[in-house]
Amino acid sequence: MEYPSKVLAKAVDEISGLPGIGKKSALRLALHLLKQPESQAIALGDSLKKLVTDIKYCRECHNFSDSEVCDICANPKRTEELLCVVEDVRDVMAIENTGKFRGKYLVLGGKISPMEGIGPNKLNISSIEKKLETGIVKELIFALSATMEGDTTAYYIYKKFKSSTVRFSTIARGISVGDELEYADEISLGRSIQNRLPYSEGS
Amino acid sequence: MEYPSKVLAKAVDEISGLPGIGKKSALRLALHLLKQPESQAIALGDSLKKLVTDIKYCRECHNFSDSEVCDICANPKRTEELLCVVEDVRDVMAIENTGKFRGKYLVLGGKISPMEGIGPNKLNISSIEKKLETGIVKELIFALSATMEGDTTAYYIYKKFKSSTVRFSTIARGISVGDELEYADEISLGRSIQNRLPYSEGS
Repeated sequence: MEYPSKVLAKAVDEISGLPGIGKKSALRLALHLLKQPESQAIALGDSLKKLVTDIKYCRECHNFSDSEVCDICANPKRTEELLCVVEDVRDVMAIENTGKFRGKYLVLGGKISPMEGIGPNKLNISSIEKKLETGIVKELIFALSATMEGDTTAYYIYKKFKSSTVRFSTIARGISVGDELEYADEISLGRSIQNRLPYSEGS
Repeated sequence: MEYPSKVLAKAVDEISGLPGIGKKSALRLALHLLKQPESQAIALGDSLKKLVTDIKYCRECHNFSDSEVCDICANPKRTEELLCVVEDVRDVMAIENTGKFRGKYLVLGGKISPMEGIGPNKLNISSIEKKLETGIVKELIFALSATMEGDTTAYYIYKKFKSSTVRFSTIARGISVGDELEYADEISLGRSIQNRLPYSEGS
């Protein structure tokens, strides 16, 4: 497809680099932006650039943050005794949205997946170790997707730290097997973190 | 939904302002960008801003262009005798893609649609008048969508200029009624512009 303008071609090319957006959709989006006031595309462009340049990772939990330590970790009303291990930022947002959890999080940054070449060393597991070494954490809660990879990740962490004094639990599987955590409805997800179960090798 | 970071919230907000992209998809796209090298989001952001600030409209045909006059209008090998009237830039691209048309275009910028409050005065119809006044255009070809609005637009233009010496034609309706022009396959679209028919009131 030949574009009448190089700036249009470039924009379509960049937009279609996003997952799930093909050339035709990218062109539609570009033409949509051209029909709107200039300020909209400028604001969008600026906020995408700011997103990657200004965002920080919380040094405590690896959640996204605007400062060194995220609002959740900096909140003294939240107990350090409960540490909820999640795969990714969207899971933190999903659990926060239920309003049922008052502990802290640890964002792994993924799950163990040999198929995608993601081993334990690519996840923030050493941060769990640091948290456990303080002796403050009483309970480590797995809030991982009910998939093979989620289970493998939980098992790996459990094996690694089972000699510590921490209690292991996992969110109640009210969620059907194979489901991604982020698509669970608030009520089920809230209930499953309240009714969490002790974690054992066969669970 | 509460976001862990204001820059993330802002980016999601801006992305979900695009048509067909909801908050969850916007978050997915933002997190995708955060997983890529920074340069990708920066390039995307820059090209969106450049798109709206640098793009020009060809003063001859109203197509997008990088200069005052677009490549098609500036091409001396293309005949001025054939003027193809289209609704929008995507239609120019679709017809150019067939490689079957060697005349010039006129981009209306839409079609007459009383439902959407688009009257003839919002379209580039005065530019058709200017082109016809030169006496060079021999044939005016309607390449409009086979919809009620497309037909109305063609009829309006035909009525306005039927006293001029120009011949009217319309692309062959190999395309089924109700179809949008841009989704037609290249072969049908190429054939339909080659086998164009004389335009008359009942066509």
